[in-house]
Amino acid sequence: MTSPTTETAGSPRAPGTCYADAAAFRSALLDAGLLVPTAATGLYQRSGDFEDAVRAVEAWAGSLRLDAYPRRSLPPILPRADFLQTDYLRSFPDLAGIVSVFTGGDAEHRALLEDLDAGGNGSTVLEPAETVLSSAVCHSVYPTLDPAIPDEGLRLEASGFAFRHEPSLDPVRMQSFRMLEHVCVGTPAQAEAHRDVWLPRMAEGLGSLGLDVRIEAANDPFFGRVGRMLAANQQQASLKHELVVDIHDEKPTAIGSTNYHEDHFSVLFDLTTPDGNLAHSGCAAFGLERIALALLSRHGLEPGHWPTEVRRELG
Amino acid sequence: MTSPTTETAGSPRAPGTCYADAAAFRSALLDAGLLVPTAATGLYQRSGDFEDAVRAVEAWAGSLRLDAYPRRSLPPILPRADFLQTDYLRSFPDLAGIVSVFTGGDAEHRALLEDLDAGGNGSTVLEPAETVLSSAVCHSVYPTLDPAIPDEGLRLEASGFAFRHEPSLDPVRMQSFRMLEHVCVGTPAQAEAHRDVWLPRMAEGLGSLGLDVRIEAANDPFFGRVGRMLAANQQQASLKHELVVDIHDEKPTAIGSTNYHEDHFSVLFDLTTPDGNLAHSGCAAFGLERIALALLSRHGLEPGHWPTEVRRELG
Repeated sequence: MTSPTTETAGSPRAPGTCYADAAAFRSALLDAGLLVPTAATGLYQRSGDFEDAVRAVEAWAGSLRLDAYPRRSLPPILPRADFLQTDYLRSFPDLAGIVSVFTGGDAEHRALLEDLDAGGNGSTVLEPAETVLSSAVCHSVYPTLDPAIPDEGLRLEASGFAFRHEPSLDPVRMQSFRMLEHVCVGTPAQAEAHRDVWLPRMAEGLGSLGLDVRIEAANDPFFGRVGRMLAANQQQASLKHELVVDIHDEKPTAIGSTNYHEDHFSVLFDLTTPDGNLAHSGCAAFGLERIALALLSRHGLEPGHWPTEVRRELG
Repeated sequence: MTSPTTETAGSPRAPGTCYADAAAFRSALLDAGLLVPTAATGLYQRSGDFEDAVRAVEAWAGSLRLDAYPRRSLPPILPRADFLQTDYLRSFPDLAGIVSVFTGGDAEHRALLEDLDAGGNGSTVLEPAETVLSSAVCHSVYPTLDPAIPDEGLRLEASGFAFRHEPSLDPVRMQSFRMLEHVCVGTPAQAEAHRDVWLPRMAEGLGSLGLDVRIEAANDPFFGRVGRMLAANQQQASLKHELVVDIHDEKPTAIGSTNYHEDHFSVLFDLTTPDGNLAHSGCAAFGLERIALALLSRHGLEPGHWPTEVRRELG
């Protein structure tokens, strides 16, 4: 499987340089056939080469695991009831994707056809589905856990598609992308230790792929006026850190993060440690497309020509 | 990575037998930890072992390719505009998943929070998104093609998640699942030849995995009264065939299909052959989770213990 990469597009950039801006990087990716644009801004189909790179990154990110804990692969939707419980729609309404379905009979079908004929979008005859688009893979996991968290804490690896409604021409900002997360639920000490282990481990791992990452205190993009306060609190409490890299010179890109949720998810889903207290949770999250894009930016658009040590590291 | 499979649950069934019904098969899969149920009927998280089996099936289904044509990996959503053009919402309204998003400011956010506080689902303040859930992977491909189809026809392999709103306790009927399709767009003769090559090739390939498949004339589940006529026409014109296997004894399951679309998609997206005529298209589709489930039913719930020749065939 070869992609129609030209000699120029495929050449690695000199160390320390990167694409001038998002538009230049996007053009290079499309010209090389690595991403196929669609009619929706920020939604791409992936070439075989791009997909192979993402899956290599996924396997590599999983292999950083410290123990043989379970892996889970998640579908791109999660139950609406679980999603509403997480308060994601309240805190990040602008990023969410809500699903509707048609549950009518012949009469409603006629109404739908009439609405479509009149140039409508059929939404008047649709009902809320049992599912919504996945917000972040670990959000889908907590509601499925046995609430009795064992003594040693619970760790698992989860991977799958997430949706963010952020239409953008910057290729690092896709509407639909994959994340792999190492999740921990346990005592506060166990959840904090998870973060403290993973933050340097992620930085070192990404460094071994030839990426110049820096660790930054960060916050989630809470919506609106109240959201700005929540974001400031989150940053002040050191709950979120990002692994940041320059994929293009327009602005830095987070390609991974660690998140310490305190008891946010445990309250909702009754996750309890053997001492009878609410559990705490945390995750170390790898943005799989973003890491693949960082590698393409850093080492050139032909994965087969990436440095030997990077390819060996990726397995 | 070991799953908590018991000796009994993991044992292969005697040849020619299968689970008594969907409920028995579902229980066995959940007990073995291969699928993790969620709050939404027919939506599952996959264990590492299950996911490995699905990806092995995906690689195997791709390897049956006859030429080195391009591969594409698709996100689980497609542009709404493309989707509406395919008429899927008219023909299969009951299966579709339509996405809404929030595009408001602080005032609309307040309205959203009030609605959620009152037990609502927020749908009154949502707007149609630029995307919808993918119906079938090949539907996402046609709108992105260069409409000038080359002399030799165009072939590609496409893989990704599809959504069908068919909540069911039968584990073969998932709301969110993956398909791999070998797609052909070309002259009517090229598209027909694609079908004629793939139908026996799929049957033989699935047979080499130890599955007792039969080929059946089939139709798509067109909705409603008019739909019944469309389905009958489709079957009479021999446009769809399914590869069917007994995963459990309740009813047979289609694990693959060939579809000859005539000029249905070419009319919509102006796909034209060099003679100036509308192209015809066809696809050979593998249901990846369903094939994995068929293998688990046939060869036992521990993929590591499947017959050597099956594991060799899967690579």
